Amino acid sequence: MSAPDVAALERKLLAGDRAALARAITLVESKREDRRAAARTLLDSVLPRTGGAVRIGVTGVPGVGKSTLIDQLGSMLTARGHRLAVLAVDPSSTRTGGSILGDKTRMARLAVDPNAFIRPSPSSGTLGGVAAKTRETMLLCEAAGFDVLLVETVGVGQSETAVSDLTDFFLVLMLPGAGDELQGIKKGVLELADMIAVNKAEGDNAARARAAASEYRTALSILAPASSLWTPPVITVSGLTGAGLDDLWAKVLDHRARHEAKGLLAERRRAQDVKWMWAMIEERLRARLTRDAQTRALLARLEAGVAAGETSPTAAAEEVATTLGL
Amino acid sequence: MSAPDVAALERKLLAGDRAALARAITLVESKREDRRAAARTLLDSVLPRTGGAVRIGVTGVPGVGKSTLIDQLGSMLTARGHRLAVLAVDPSSTRTGGSILGDKTRMARLAVDPNAFIRPSPSSGTLGGVAAKTRETMLLCEAAGFDVLLVETVGVGQSETAVSDLTDFFLVLMLPGAGDELQGIKKGVLELADMIAVNKAEGDNAARARAAASEYRTALSILAPASSLWTPPVITVSGLTGAGLDDLWAKVLDHRARHEAKGLLAERRRAQDVKWMWAMIEERLRARLTRDAQTRALLARLEAGVAAGETSPTAAAEEVATTLGL
Repeated sequence: MSAPDVAALERKLLAGDRAALARAITLVESKREDRRAAARTLLDSVLPRTGGAVRIGVTGVPGVGKSTLIDQLGSMLTARGHRLAVLAVDPSSTRTGGSILGDKTRMARLAVDPNAFIRPSPSSGTLGGVAAKTRETMLLCEAAGFDVLLVETVGVGQSETAVSDLTDFFLVLMLPGAGDELQGIKKGVLELADMIAVNKAEGDNAARARAAASEYRTALSILAPASSLWTPPVITVSGLTGAGLDDLWAKVLDHRARHEAKGLLAERRRAQDVKWMWAMIEERLRARLTRDAQTRALLARLEAGVAAGETSPTAAAEEVATTLGL
Repeated sequence: MSAPDVAALERKLLAGDRAALARAITLVESKREDRRAAARTLLDSVLPRTGGAVRIGVTGVPGVGKSTLIDQLGSMLTARGHRLAVLAVDPSSTRTGGSILGDKTRMARLAVDPNAFIRPSPSSGTLGGVAAKTRETMLLCEAAGFDVLLVETVGVGQSETAVSDLTDFFLVLMLPGAGDELQGIKKGVLELADMIAVNKAEGDNAARARAAASEYRTALSILAPASSLWTPPVITVSGLTGAGLDDLWAKVLDHRARHEAKGLLAERRRAQDVKWMWAMIEERLRARLTRDAQTRALLARLEAGVAAGETSPTAAAEEVATTLGL
């Protein structure tokens, strides 16, 4: 993409043009070196126009009702004048017509809402890669004037941590029916939560949802680091009926107001940026290990040797270091 | 150290000579390139004689009574004919006469026990470096015939994870008096536990210790991944009186027997070795970032720029990659 093309794209993007936003994201996600250079130019140029959105991470196991809740919450927010982008971090996804269609089908109202923008997960291999692209996509959405960003993840590998590192507020959705379900929570996820919402609190489930909320409250009181500023609340909501979503949004704004007042929102974002810098440098270093077929073969052979107990980890690392001239 | 010297050292080490073991550990911990080469030769050569010990990690906050408990437990084990080595992973330690003396003073009985060997934490900077040295020290202890290795950590940074990756069994010590104390547990540490022991269950504290154990049991039932093979037990012990230490050791052996029967002990160790290989390679890659003053200065400048919001993380990572030719 030539420099004038990038400038034109930037102009349309800053004017809030959705087609331009989609094209800019495609540019950022490209693996072609010339496109990546154009993407860097674009990102550098729009940087002063970024950072304005409320960035919310949402996780929950498949079946928890994430899409229904986001559809309902998002519609409530656009009705109030917000512009909302829904992004995803799913390292296992492959970009197919089907999965894009899937996301949009599951969020029927947002899919046709002019103030909502839905983009499925980038599909570039590693979690680090997917998260880095998502981070840049978030900046583009902010430059295009979206003021609420929802980043969802189904929680493959360490993706909750990555999403928590991308956002200001991390929301964990849970199912009613405590006890057994509590055990399905992945290690460390509860500790990332700025709030837990027990979803599907409707009809016969309402009482079970309240009971589950009470158990999660106990679990959080055991786990959560003490903070005078914020105790992660546990609420019940219904993505289906919309019950509790008002409360949910009020708590997001309350969290924001308290942290902004102390300068902690800016601090969290700066700390995230520094973390991202190091993560990207490490990604580049690691890429050195997979750049050529010879190095890849050496590593595979050594790993097999270590796994079989034939080579010591130290000897293997020495051999790699010597070969790569480290 | 010349080749004949290494061979002599190896002979004495394999004969169980404690002075030779101490010298071998000093060799492994050395930063001098010629000594490191000698250490590698020695480690490669004794490798077939390693792996025979029960490797136990022990953590707990300062004040939990780790040293007293290890002194008591260790004395019980040497009285039963075991040979015990006590190592430490403490990335914040500096090697001083004082700290060595401290370790030995706090374990008064083991310090004079001919079948016990106490070695303070290596002091080489990063956690990865400290843990890697400790791993090699463990191999040397096994080659010297020690059949129980206790690796303690006070839990600075991620040191519990590192110790858990070095051992077969991870023991978390807790204080009686639940509730508030529960909140002092660092993120994720409970999830690493193969067993929790509430220490200081003596005299007036006994009832409080039992109450705490009951709370930790609940917390574990919420957190612990379900396994048909092992549910981490929560017991009460007294390092001071020795109460419960019989039970503690029986549970360590039970855990071992169950995992060995399914081949899972060997599997855990192989997986740890592969993880170590990658950790050591990454350590080498990262070392590339700090090798010369120019690179260090560049990184410091870029990090400051990102922290101040003047440079984007992406641009910073690009500049590093370009400068290092990645």
